[in-house]
Amino acid sequence: MVVVGAGAVGAAVAWSAAREQLAGEVVLVDPDPGSGASRVAGGMLAPITEAWPGEQEVLELGAASLARWPAFAEAVAADAGGPVGLRTEGTLQVATDAADVADLDRVVEHLRAWGRDVERLSGREVRRREPALGPAVRAGLAVPDDLAVDNRALLAALTAAGRARGVVTARRRVTRVLDDGARVTGVELGDDVLEADRVVVAAGAWSSALHPALADRVRPVKGEILRVRARRSSLPPPVRTVRAAVSGRPVYAVPRDERRVVVGATQYEAGFDPDVLVGGVRDLIADVERVLPGIADYALEETAASFRPGTDDNLPLLGPVGPSGLVAATGHGRNGMLLVAVTVDAITAVLRGEALPDAARPAAADRWAPGARTVDGGTTGARTDAG
Amino acid sequence: MVVVGAGAVGAAVAWSAAREQLAGEVVLVDPDPGSGASRVAGGMLAPITEAWPGEQEVLELGAASLARWPAFAEAVAADAGGPVGLRTEGTLQVATDAADVADLDRVVEHLRAWGRDVERLSGREVRRREPALGPAVRAGLAVPDDLAVDNRALLAALTAAGRARGVVTARRRVTRVLDDGARVTGVELGDDVLEADRVVVAAGAWSSALHPALADRVRPVKGEILRVRARRSSLPPPVRTVRAAVSGRPVYAVPRDERRVVVGATQYEAGFDPDVLVGGVRDLIADVERVLPGIADYALEETAASFRPGTDDNLPLLGPVGPSGLVAATGHGRNGMLLVAVTVDAITAVLRGEALPDAARPAAADRWAPGARTVDGGTTGARTDAG
Repeated sequence: MVVVGAGAVGAAVAWSAAREQLAGEVVLVDPDPGSGASRVAGGMLAPITEAWPGEQEVLELGAASLARWPAFAEAVAADAGGPVGLRTEGTLQVATDAADVADLDRVVEHLRAWGRDVERLSGREVRRREPALGPAVRAGLAVPDDLAVDNRALLAALTAAGRARGVVTARRRVTRVLDDGARVTGVELGDDVLEADRVVVAAGAWSSALHPALADRVRPVKGEILRVRARRSSLPPPVRTVRAAVSGRPVYAVPRDERRVVVGATQYEAGFDPDVLVGGVRDLIADVERVLPGIADYALEETAASFRPGTDDNLPLLGPVGPSGLVAATGHGRNGMLLVAVTVDAITAVLRGEALPDAARPAAADRWAPGARTVDGGTTGARTDAG
Repeated sequence: MVVVGAGAVGAAVAWSAAREQLAGEVVLVDPDPGSGASRVAGGMLAPITEAWPGEQEVLELGAASLARWPAFAEAVAADAGGPVGLRTEGTLQVATDAADVADLDRVVEHLRAWGRDVERLSGREVRRREPALGPAVRAGLAVPDDLAVDNRALLAALTAAGRARGVVTARRRVTRVLDDGARVTGVELGDDVLEADRVVVAAGAWSSALHPALADRVRPVKGEILRVRARRSSLPPPVRTVRAAVSGRPVYAVPRDERRVVVGATQYEAGFDPDVLVGGVRDLIADVERVLPGIADYALEETAASFRPGTDDNLPLLGPVGPSGLVAATGHGRNGMLLVAVTVDAITAVLRGEALPDAARPAAADRWAPGARTVDGGTTGARTDAG
């Protein structure tokens, strides 16, 4: 079996397939493993604060994945021989100006209507919990169930766990998935061919180019982040993930070990433009400083850009699609770290020969295009070869 | 002979000494050649726009060095077999708010009183010359004689030129210069000793720790820069160096080849603190955007910090100091790239056994401490062993 793409999703699927001995030798193919969106991710496991009214399926899928995360983390850690970087301190969503506070209150109402337990806090109350928050913060929302993971620790753990289970990594670029019209036959690596009767496409934003069945299903959504570090002279970073809207613009600060914080993220529909822009960095700094003013004294260790794999309905593409043997595990948008747990379970079930688990059905890769979906938001369940 | 420090000054002195065969084998010792302030420099060769009223000696030394730059560049290029990255498009000093314009006019008056030819321009006139300048620019000063050099091209050329002349580079850290009380005997490399009867200290901000004769003469003055690149969609960068005061805070943008620009520089008296600060990057972006607004769309390729070797009177330390055989070529502050030409001439003369040339006398390393200087600003000319 071939898995295309060694980001968190591809590495996790390869590890799980090898662990369950479902598919003979598992070859994970990537020209530069762990270098894409997974490397640049903030690492939020935050379905609740990520939720937008009208995207209930995204919330439900995220919640289902978060519920699977502890078991997933434990199994990976056991095979890796070390932790995956899960942080369980929870999340604070905060607001600064009046319009942001009003938005926050609408979210509270919405989440309560969905039966999600959240706690509305005053500015003073959020500052008591996180002294790093500045005076501009006027209100907050405590969401203890929204967690985070150190994305690079997870990538390292998945690599080690896969290696322990016999996953073979090939540092090559897959140019397309090959089939004979009915069944997958392998992958093309430039002038070479690697034969395989099953191929999992976990190539993130690059997935659409690999097979006609995925054409136009995934687009790159560029994002930029900063990685900063509190110095000895600095105010300590927050303990929880802090998310904010600053004049309507979302910003987050996700703490890491060793006094580090990931600040994100810009969002551009700009194709595969790899540049970190001066204006993007300017906006991230301005927005995060409004919420965490002490960050001005932090060291700026890294700026980076990557491409989230976006889909039209913000749900990933999971499971069989196109010719027999082709399996999608892509299109995770902003939520790859969160959704990796439910993705691994779903793809492992498919590789076992089972149907896509119920929790993952709204994300079935062979669902109709969004325009053709039924009015209640459910999928038709029909299989279609998009190619 | 040993030269301590392979920044621009050390590499240039080593090259010149080897070229003139003044000192037998020339060993250039540096744990990481070209990694210090020379690597991070803006590369301005700009004595006029660098001038501050009351620092006439700094201006005169800079002007003397700039006059030597074309011959220096030509000689290095001839030995290197390639160009050193000299840019002769000149400099524009611009002002934004009313106070900055008033400052600019004082500088114009001052420079004219010194007989320096400068041209006062309106906002419209400077924008006509550099369309990248934004509407906030209200006045300017054309200084065609203030040039620039690509600092990294210069470092590469000096390395190649030195190699061509037989300079040997040792990637080691000098921990101190050794002497027998009267004469230099070599340098200490941790547990090893490299014997030498002449040692040139060109270790920039690290120079003071190397010998008691240099103790407290040089301090680190931290600075941060950005390296940005115009993209295909961007407004092209300026052709000339642009310097500005934005609400009194100086900022510069020095064009490089291939659409790159170096933006600098912050200034901190903070010891050897190597971090690039979030707040420093924020200020540089804000200030340069005020003058060159199109830079928001540029790619941010690099942020970096380094330590300028500062002295109490802003003049370098050149020539004999302390025990016989010890020669200083350090303390160049913000002006290392500019002053490398006069420094090479001065140190080469000293190594030849001559007196320090007149142009370099105000910067004699054995000058009295500033408090003991004569009231007219001249040096006493007396030699003193500061150790």
